Amino acid sequence: MSLVVIGTVAFDAIETPFGKTDKIVGGAATYASIAASYFYNKTKIVAVIGDDFHQEDIETFKSKNIDVEGLQIKKGEKSFFWSGKYHNDMNSRDTLVTELNVLADFDPIIPETYQDCEYLMLGNLTPQVQKTVIERLKKRPKLIVLDTMNFWMDIALTDLLETIKLVDVLTINDSEARQLSGEYSLVKAAQKILTMGPKYLIIKKGEHGALLFHGNQIFSAPALPLADVFDPTGAGDTFAGGFIGYLAQVGTINFNNMKNAIIFGSALASFCVEKFGIERIKNLTQEEISNRVQQFVNLSHFEIKG
Amino acid sequence: MSLVVIGTVAFDAIETPFGKTDKIVGGAATYASIAASYFYNKTKIVAVIGDDFHQEDIETFKSKNIDVEGLQIKKGEKSFFWSGKYHNDMNSRDTLVTELNVLADFDPIIPETYQDCEYLMLGNLTPQVQKTVIERLKKRPKLIVLDTMNFWMDIALTDLLETIKLVDVLTINDSEARQLSGEYSLVKAAQKILTMGPKYLIIKKGEHGALLFHGNQIFSAPALPLADVFDPTGAGDTFAGGFIGYLAQVGTINFNNMKNAIIFGSALASFCVEKFGIERIKNLTQEEISNRVQQFVNLSHFEIKG
Repeated sequence: MSLVVIGTVAFDAIETPFGKTDKIVGGAATYASIAASYFYNKTKIVAVIGDDFHQEDIETFKSKNIDVEGLQIKKGEKSFFWSGKYHNDMNSRDTLVTELNVLADFDPIIPETYQDCEYLMLGNLTPQVQKTVIERLKKRPKLIVLDTMNFWMDIALTDLLETIKLVDVLTINDSEARQLSGEYSLVKAAQKILTMGPKYLIIKKGEHGALLFHGNQIFSAPALPLADVFDPTGAGDTFAGGFIGYLAQVGTINFNNMKNAIIFGSALASFCVEKFGIERIKNLTQEEISNRVQQFVNLSHFEIKG
Repeated sequence: MSLVVIGTVAFDAIETPFGKTDKIVGGAATYASIAASYFYNKTKIVAVIGDDFHQEDIETFKSKNIDVEGLQIKKGEKSFFWSGKYHNDMNSRDTLVTELNVLADFDPIIPETYQDCEYLMLGNLTPQVQKTVIERLKKRPKLIVLDTMNFWMDIALTDLLETIKLVDVLTINDSEARQLSGEYSLVKAAQKILTMGPKYLIIKKGEHGALLFHGNQIFSAPALPLADVFDPTGAGDTFAGGFIGYLAQVGTINFNNMKNAIIFGSALASFCVEKFGIERIKNLTQEEISNRVQQFVNLSHFEIKG
């Protein structure tokens, strides 16, 4: 039994009002697998990099007990590179550079040892590649979570719709939910999206928290109000990784466990934004995580006597 | 002992994507006093209208047991009139007409029977008038809540700052909190605003709920996700009225009761937006209110076992 995470492992160069980085390790699969590793110790990664990656970067995964057998290293090629600059409000950003490099013809290879996959996290990537991973698993995982973004809705909507038909949980942000459904009301958007395949929909609202929809049930999770958001890069991937990692640990899929998984995912994401890249999330202690989760409890708990 | 609500009692003409009204009864004090009346039966109103108001409109207040002795009726004058048109997203609106009429020289008269005021709701109005009401109460109320808006920050900031020095609770929306503090982060904004006088700050975030700040404590209240928002007019006033009405009922001011008051205020506001004007909130049953509050509980409750 394992949790397989597919997505990008990449270099990012990030500029925020607080500072600027050179090329640092990023990518959806990086954030998600590290976040998941705090909850589940059989996390495995499927991704592709060039030979420009340093051995110490790969060691980061190994130190978190993340299986890298599915991490292809292309000799003589370069890793995916993204560079972006955040605006002052930290809610919007400009992409400065996107170099696909090894990602251009990524053919995800699923090692035989990954065929015990019970939890599959399809990190943000071409929907076609996400679908290929599902097809290459001999046994359908118990839970498939797919994260995507508006970019794929713009350029690969047909593929995306084909792929989300096959998944259990879809995670997108509020404007993406509106785009995908054509509905402004998030309740109506969710109703429509829940007919497209996923049984659970998570709408991420950044500083406003997240909504979980399932049938007629809705859960509203708060976001931790933060004095400073240092770098939002990877927060959504970290959320998704913490979410599925928690569910893999608990082992039972139901609405209540999903609610808690969202809180744990949100807690991990709240660490992510405190520093550049994976700096803050790569060395968390279980105590830090449970203290942070307790902050979410305190933040949203109220008791009304009937 | 009583709860005194001051604010506008006015006519509104509203256009939304769902329809259009002629002149209907509106105004901050109207919404707030009706909302408060569901929790506290000694609610009294201070406002001014012209003689264009119909007796049946005044009867609406009386039917909710709202004391109208402080409702001045100016013979031969016209009531405050506002007309606005909401955009498709219902989050923004254009003001089409503003006729101050009787509001232009509103001198709030506090009847002697109102001097038992223990809870004072200063609904959105000129800060100078809000301050006058505080000064005309011989005994300082146990709790003063002030609601205001960006308009007064733009044209009467000095008066506003003088007035908020005197209050216990300030309710504003997120962009107003940013404007008032000059801070983008709501945590930093709250820290600054809590040095300006109020001991409690409520930041209303519309469809994203509300945040309560007090010292180092924060409470995040969800908003009920709604399939349709029919007319947002008065939702903030209804929230404030439900909030202070609940506190007047409970009688003890502390952070936990404030949290519940926000949930009750939010529940009332969620009814308000279902129809035009006060149509939905003027005839609620206690059962409807407690069912709606239960929806807020279900929406945000989670239980994490340590």
